[in-house]
Amino acid sequence: MSNSIRIGIVGYGNLGKGVVSAIGQNPDMELVGIFTRREPSTLNNPDGLNFLHVREVEQYTNSIDVMILCGGSATDLPEQGPQFSTMFNTVDSFDTHAKIPEYFEKVNQSAVKSGKVAVISTGWDPGMFSLNRLMAESILREGTDYTFWGKGVSQGHSDAIRRVPGVKGGVQYTVPVQSVIDDIRNGGTPELATREKHLRECFVVAEDGADLEKITQEIVTMPNYFADYDTTVHFISQEELAANHSEMPHGGFVIRSGITGNNNRQIVEYSLKLSSNPEFTASVLVAYARAAYRLSSEGVSGAKTVFDIAPGYLSPKSPEQLRAELL
Amino acid sequence: MSNSIRIGIVGYGNLGKGVVSAIGQNPDMELVGIFTRREPSTLNNPDGLNFLHVREVEQYTNSIDVMILCGGSATDLPEQGPQFSTMFNTVDSFDTHAKIPEYFEKVNQSAVKSGKVAVISTGWDPGMFSLNRLMAESILREGTDYTFWGKGVSQGHSDAIRRVPGVKGGVQYTVPVQSVIDDIRNGGTPELATREKHLRECFVVAEDGADLEKITQEIVTMPNYFADYDTTVHFISQEELAANHSEMPHGGFVIRSGITGNNNRQIVEYSLKLSSNPEFTASVLVAYARAAYRLSSEGVSGAKTVFDIAPGYLSPKSPEQLRAELL
Repeated sequence: MSNSIRIGIVGYGNLGKGVVSAIGQNPDMELVGIFTRREPSTLNNPDGLNFLHVREVEQYTNSIDVMILCGGSATDLPEQGPQFSTMFNTVDSFDTHAKIPEYFEKVNQSAVKSGKVAVISTGWDPGMFSLNRLMAESILREGTDYTFWGKGVSQGHSDAIRRVPGVKGGVQYTVPVQSVIDDIRNGGTPELATREKHLRECFVVAEDGADLEKITQEIVTMPNYFADYDTTVHFISQEELAANHSEMPHGGFVIRSGITGNNNRQIVEYSLKLSSNPEFTASVLVAYARAAYRLSSEGVSGAKTVFDIAPGYLSPKSPEQLRAELL
Repeated sequence: MSNSIRIGIVGYGNLGKGVVSAIGQNPDMELVGIFTRREPSTLNNPDGLNFLHVREVEQYTNSIDVMILCGGSATDLPEQGPQFSTMFNTVDSFDTHAKIPEYFEKVNQSAVKSGKVAVISTGWDPGMFSLNRLMAESILREGTDYTFWGKGVSQGHSDAIRRVPGVKGGVQYTVPVQSVIDDIRNGGTPELATREKHLRECFVVAEDGADLEKITQEIVTMPNYFADYDTTVHFISQEELAANHSEMPHGGFVIRSGITGNNNRQIVEYSLKLSSNPEFTASVLVAYARAAYRLSSEGVSGAKTVFDIAPGYLSPKSPEQLRAELL
């Protein structure tokens, strides 16, 4: 194992668990430890993972090659990105699109100063979807871009449902409108707001004796979350919720419909159909951890995004192998 | 125009024409001239293009930033790639997959020596399809890859049809098998040979009085080209051939179906639906010409493939703009 890429993880939610699993699929990597803010001795640890307290992290600067930051974008990453990149090469999935430029600048300052590489905002959106938006737009200069999300669980909308009085539990799926996708695939270039491209489907467990009609009305008229969308509410039992709606599927489509030459329609589409959203995101982070390690070995430093990294850096294969096998 | 990227083209077939058109869609580029082996004065030139004889090319080493090589892979590029990269940054679409490693070495030697950048084997396959095979394989380490081509015209198979006695003209379409694609999209991972993934559909114009049954038999039993495939032959008139089968549509699908975590199926798909195969390929070449120009400005030299080039180099937008608009 001495030549493997030594990985650390900060945070052990769904994403951190996905990273543990993804490292197990990459024989050129080794998991050194998982840093948490909880006391390691208090954690349920059936798989014998090496949990460590974040206060010990400075002891690991020489034994971890890349730290994968698995915290949330709202409060964890804005602190952790700039902080950990003073000590480690890092990879994160910062996904508050509007704040990416500001976050980039902060992490870049920190990483340039420490001489480390910090890959920010990777995963699938931002990440693979961004990359495909960029590639398609660079190739087809005249065209229209479409990003659809789903079918998948939206955590924010599921939380909103659960705050409605009389609701015991529930899940919300964002569902892209198939007829719109079909139209675009057939050469249509409609102008559409996000809400015209997506439906919202809710599976709700009501409290005993609750007024179902009232719950439905509260959900479908909720401003910002549901009022502007075509929303469906299904009432189900607690057992059904647990049995059929506990997974975290997601996915989506990035389509660019362009024109070349004498009005020739050219359509590029990238799509994901994911049974586990956090595990896929984690797999992307792990591939970019390999890239961060290699870039750092070449003397590169600073914040990087998927736009800045040559794709070959993601693969464990040599350039010769890639050219022979995949080109 | 003084700050634009100055482009030269070698070869004026369908691909070269597509490059002229694509340069017109990129305001940061300027077409300096088109080099051909024919006498420029003898060429039909309604658009007033600047045709030049290839023997004059050495006079342009200081006035062309990137030369786009639009010759064929069989005989043109094996000579032109190593030759032009002694003088210019180059981009080509060398697509004989089995010979790419050898071609890379030759062009690399030449480009390292001259200090130029030579982007080889770009377009869509090799090119965008290769890139997507690499990305998906690097992310989903356990999985199965599928590449489908079509629906599109295969020049080799169309030529084969036209050599059958009694055939006046014809076109062959390679058609991916929809039921197989559907199976894979739904999580199936069948083991398939290329011939099980594609159908061959032929539109044939027969000579007057020719034996249609005999022609059909000769086509569907033709070794290598058709015998192993499910092949359909339609007889049509010369007028129908000209009216409905003179375009060059193509496309295809790259799908990776992988597993993460506890048997969670994850499916990544990239697809192209192209009304004009050469114009799309040309648009890819032109985007990589921008990358070649920038890499060269940074002092990089040698042969490069899509695997070696960070995606941001393809876009005319600044890194700040890309992060703000597309990430």
